[in-house]
Amino acid sequence: MDYAFSLDFKVRDYECDIQGIVNNGVYQNYLEHTRHEFLLVSGINFAELAQKKINLVVIRAELDYKYPLQSGDCFRVTLNMCQASKIRFEFLQDIYRLPDNKVILKAKIIGTSLNEKGRPFLPQEITQLIEKTSKNT
Amino acid sequence: MDYAFSLDFKVRDYECDIQGIVNNGVYQNYLEHTRHEFLLVSGINFAELAQKKINLVVIRAELDYKYPLQSGDCFRVTLNMCQASKIRFEFLQDIYRLPDNKVILKAKIIGTSLNEKGRPFLPQEITQLIEKTSKNT
Amino acid sequence: MDYAFSLDFKVRDYECDIQGIVNNGVYQNYLEHTRHEFLLVSGINFAELAQKKINLVVIRAELDYKYPLQSGDCFRVTLNMCQASKIRFEFLQDIYRLPDNKVILKAKIIGTSLNEKGRPFLPQEITQLIEKTSKNT
Amino acid sequence: MDYAFSLDFKVRDYECDIQGIVNNGVYQNYLEHTRHEFLLVSGINFAELAQKKINLVVIRAELDYKYPLQSGDCFRVTLNMCQASKIRFEFLQDIYRLPDNKVILKAKIIGTSLNEKGRPFLPQEITQLIEKTSKNT
Repeated sequence: MDYAFSLDFKVRDYECDIQGIVNNGVYQNYLEHTRHEFLLVSGINFAELAQKKINLVVIRAELDYKYPLQSGDCFRVTLNMCQASKIRFEFLQDIYRLPDNKVILKAKIIGTSLNEKGRPFLPQEITQLIEKTSKNT
Repeated sequence: MDYAFSLDFKVRDYECDIQGIVNNGVYQNYLEHTRHEFLLVSGINFAELAQKKINLVVIRAELDYKYPLQSGDCFRVTLNMCQASKIRFEFLQDIYRLPDNKVILKAKIIGTSLNEKGRPFLPQEITQLIEKTSKNT
Repeated sequence: MDYAFSLDFKVRDYECDIQGIVNNGVYQNYLEHTRHEFLLVSGINFAELAQKKINLVVIRAELDYKYPLQSGDCFRVTLNMCQASKIRFEFLQDIYRLPDNKVILKAKIIGTSLNEKGRPFLPQEITQLIEKTSKNT
Repeated sequence: MDYAFSLDFKVRDYECDIQGIVNNGVYQNYLEHTRHEFLLVSGINFAELAQKKINLVVIRAELDYKYPLQSGDCFRVTLNMCQASKIRFEFLQDIYRLPDNKVILKAKIIGTSLNEKGRPFLPQEITQLIEKTSKNT
């Protein structure tokens, strides 16, 4: 499958819990960091937007946990992006263990951005990025 | 609405991110801690089970983010539990800000348990708990 | 021993690591949350100060790990505060397991505050709090 | 300065707090991951040791925070290792921002290992590693 962006990671031991596997909540960290790096190489800086009071926010997350990552595992987090509605964007994100490409997690993350008054809107940078990203994949 | 269990929390500043609100991934921590405390008062110890190689695992999470929590907020995490299939259980979990009961997040968490060989099954303690919990709510 | 402030916690399972005990880094979270709650009841809001570009920062932390906390443990985090120099304050913080009061960790946290230009200074609220706190303990 | 080992990182936005900088507690995560990776390339697997009930533990941490990391920063975490006593080892760890090598944090981490009964001892792998590491640096 083709992805608009991907980023490679290695599990850090502090991310694992009593069961010896990566804790459920940590996968959202991996997914978020990958989205922010994608935005950054696309010219959109999450932290700078936050300072300008434009906040990109997640409004729904669906996560299917297929197989757990454990200490020492390397893995790739991927993403594709599309427009979900006039004011919503959607990321489809898969995580694969490396080097065997075993599917670890499949996620759909729906987001929007809020202006200074907390009203949802899609800034031009985002709609242009979606347009460009959809064409390439 | 009636819930089988609820637990009150206060936001800790290290849980907030650049946007000044609780980071997305942290809500899964709140939800997990509430499930584990519910299991504990019901006589099921997550950590002890893990030591016996019986692992309760999340296989799907659906999270609807309604409104962000921020520094200083108090909130209640609730849950109801039911059986989703022969080998799956389901938690419906809502988060409310206190004292105004504003809805913060609604989640559905589907889980199973894995035996020593990694095969899914529902241990008797869990099926009995589901039966008891469904009657009470 | 007398403390100016204390706060009770319960270990959350996601805070424990592969060894089945609370991860080293997590204790700094407990210490920070206790400091911020102490400041809050003393009329100093960390988050509001940050928005005004007055940043309270840690410049040195000394942590002596005496005994590990594990899943299910309740514990108390305490603090005393004093002035370390013209521009530095110091927190002495101990963690005790409850109810047996076993010593878990002893810490010394030295901090300062930075003004909008990043220069260290002690705002009046802080020096007044130190004066008041030292008298009471 | 010469180091026995170093590892490069990039700040992830979820590691930053309300002040827009990396939270204090997170630096211990960076330091730990670097130590574990160093041990791993030296043939010592922290997670496997934990399963064999040999637990490497931190007993004292001294952290000097020199300058904060913020969103987007790349940085290098370094280490040197030496023997602190018959049953204690010591890591000296520095963090530098990249590419300008600004000093971010200087840390001394003292640890030991505990056998199945919780008694401190230094396993042969560790004493051999210390001997080899001290020679090389």
